Amino acid sequence: MKSIGILGSTGSIGTQALEIIKNSNQNFLVDYLYSNSNYKILYEQILDFSPNYVCINDKESYMMLSDLINANHNIKTQVIFGVEDSLDFISDRNVDLALNAIVGVDGLKPTMHIINGNKNLALANKESLVLAGEIVMNNAKKNQLKIFPVDSEHSAIWQCLKGEKEKDINKIILTASGGPFRKLNYKNFSNITVQDALNHPNWEMGNKITIDSATMMNKGFEVIETYWLFGVGSDKIDIVVHPQSIIHSMVEFNDKSIKAQIGTPDMKVPINYALNYPNHTLLDMPSLDFSSIDKLTFEKPDLIKFKCIDLAYQALENSGTSTAVLNISNDIAVNLFLSNKIKFIDIPIIIEKAIEKHHHISSPTLDDIYHLMEWTKEYVIKEVNYVHN
Amino acid sequence: MKSIGILGSTGSIGTQALEIIKNSNQNFLVDYLYSNSNYKILYEQILDFSPNYVCINDKESYMMLSDLINANHNIKTQVIFGVEDSLDFISDRNVDLALNAIVGVDGLKPTMHIINGNKNLALANKESLVLAGEIVMNNAKKNQLKIFPVDSEHSAIWQCLKGEKEKDINKIILTASGGPFRKLNYKNFSNITVQDALNHPNWEMGNKITIDSATMMNKGFEVIETYWLFGVGSDKIDIVVHPQSIIHSMVEFNDKSIKAQIGTPDMKVPINYALNYPNHTLLDMPSLDFSSIDKLTFEKPDLIKFKCIDLAYQALENSGTSTAVLNISNDIAVNLFLSNKIKFIDIPIIIEKAIEKHHHISSPTLDDIYHLMEWTKEYVIKEVNYVHN
Repeated sequence: MKSIGILGSTGSIGTQALEIIKNSNQNFLVDYLYSNSNYKILYEQILDFSPNYVCINDKESYMMLSDLINANHNIKTQVIFGVEDSLDFISDRNVDLALNAIVGVDGLKPTMHIINGNKNLALANKESLVLAGEIVMNNAKKNQLKIFPVDSEHSAIWQCLKGEKEKDINKIILTASGGPFRKLNYKNFSNITVQDALNHPNWEMGNKITIDSATMMNKGFEVIETYWLFGVGSDKIDIVVHPQSIIHSMVEFNDKSIKAQIGTPDMKVPINYALNYPNHTLLDMPSLDFSSIDKLTFEKPDLIKFKCIDLAYQALENSGTSTAVLNISNDIAVNLFLSNKIKFIDIPIIIEKAIEKHHHISSPTLDDIYHLMEWTKEYVIKEVNYVHN
Repeated sequence: MKSIGILGSTGSIGTQALEIIKNSNQNFLVDYLYSNSNYKILYEQILDFSPNYVCINDKESYMMLSDLINANHNIKTQVIFGVEDSLDFISDRNVDLALNAIVGVDGLKPTMHIINGNKNLALANKESLVLAGEIVMNNAKKNQLKIFPVDSEHSAIWQCLKGEKEKDINKIILTASGGPFRKLNYKNFSNITVQDALNHPNWEMGNKITIDSATMMNKGFEVIETYWLFGVGSDKIDIVVHPQSIIHSMVEFNDKSIKAQIGTPDMKVPINYALNYPNHTLLDMPSLDFSSIDKLTFEKPDLIKFKCIDLAYQALENSGTSTAVLNISNDIAVNLFLSNKIKFIDIPIIIEKAIEKHHHISSPTLDDIYHLMEWTKEYVIKEVNYVHN
């Protein structure tokens, strides 16, 4: 039995992971669950999975959860409260695998605590690598830890690389749906509304990540993740737009043979694979029916329309703090767009300026990165207010 | 340096293998070449590769080759003459890998001699497995030998299975171009001419195999090969028609994740992989350009139009001598079609009758199979003469 801790257990990836664990014939022991504030779902999960511990960060949520637990004498689960105590806890707790499914920049600290605490990490939090890829990977390497990707694209690449040698890789081909504006003429980009951008063709996701998919910054982040996870240069990472999202990504080897991972778009497959690696453990879902596929098509990404891709490649080449500023300024810009403070086309403009203006550090510490979070936020807000006043 | 023997060195696979070896930075030492009668090409290959030995079966060709060699004092290559001596030679000769690229039923004996002589085998001769899969695999297993597939489909499956466990396989999906009659209405099948059938959309191949592709018997044979090479039941082997021949085959695992091997249709890729396994050694050819692909499509095979597929599955389920008779009667029927003695639609009818009428043996010996070659030939000729007189 594999003991597991799940961070972000009440989110989309966390709940799907628990669904898989529930159907897994007791292959897993849920040691702890970790949620910021969603005490209602967390309480349901305690009833379902009887974890040894739960961590919760928000004070009010902690109190509500404690009341529920105290009223139920069957519950043996202990509660850890507050960010610092929770982080220390996950660092110390002995699990076979920790799944970090926290969304956004808040996932970085937990990633560092898992790695520094010497646990194998299933990583759904891409920001950990975009913000601090070098630090994360160096610490993982030092502790001889494995990082299992949970993203569908990186899981695809990881599956294609099974049994293969790094030196045999010619290039990695990330597929991209192209988002809702693949066919929109660039001259209409200035009229894109929030509602337009939230209308993703293939995947149902949160608002923030759906906008990242519309700008294709999501794919830019994935290029950076690929760089850190698989150790290939940015010149060996290609993006191919594949609107049907059936091929989840590919690897081309030196003999020009390409391996691809294919399937219905469903996050349960990469989650299940990360939990059960190296096995393709049974998932109760239908096989992809090839005769139901109309066609699979491929295009080059349009780097004029999707300037965020270009910015991500540039940030990766500049390395150091550039990718962190890319990530942070994008977060802020997307929020400003979602609250109608800026236009869709302003997003890459803001990011480019923030990267250009920031004080670049080649080998930043975590403190440098946290400092940049503050700086970038202030800079972007000031810049936007300046332009709009 | 890997020492290699190539049987069928003057054919399509053999010459491509030698081309790869020529460009391989001396990774290989060509120990012997084996050709039935093509002394002219064989002589060129002697000049290019200086093998230690060549085997040649046809007497006149042997004499012509000997004259050429005797006239050139720089040649150190020794010549082995005649089938029996050649077979004994390949059985005894110590090479790291023997590539059997002989076309048709004549490939079975060499396969057995390679395996019984304890050499690893790169197998391009599918008939070895269709005629005598059980014997071939049992002997390979007994001698703990590896059989490396050279067919594009089986190489694709083999690549997809790298690092994977047999128990994780849910099904193997063989892709098929569908041949020239994919879109032809069945009511027009009785009018198909030899010229129609020789017009294959994607691959340039010999006449016999092009007809096998038009009847889709080729795919039926590949189902049988898949069964023997990868140890999965026939209920776990699917065929998907994929007219563009870009996906060369796929494996679906128990988690419904599918791995596919993709590339420009070029036999050099599977040959190179079999020669260099487990490495994807550099091949100097262009990468597949995804943006140049119009679309990839998929269909179910039409088992009414392509009855040969059904016959192959049935023969595999009946096991024993059924697949051998399938193979032998198909060879004869295709030749009769190519010489305008029977119609295209007669091919599966003849095969079905031959399988039905033959004396079935569950675990045949090689002698049983050779005896069946005679019986089937006599039976089919008699049957065709009876029907046509």
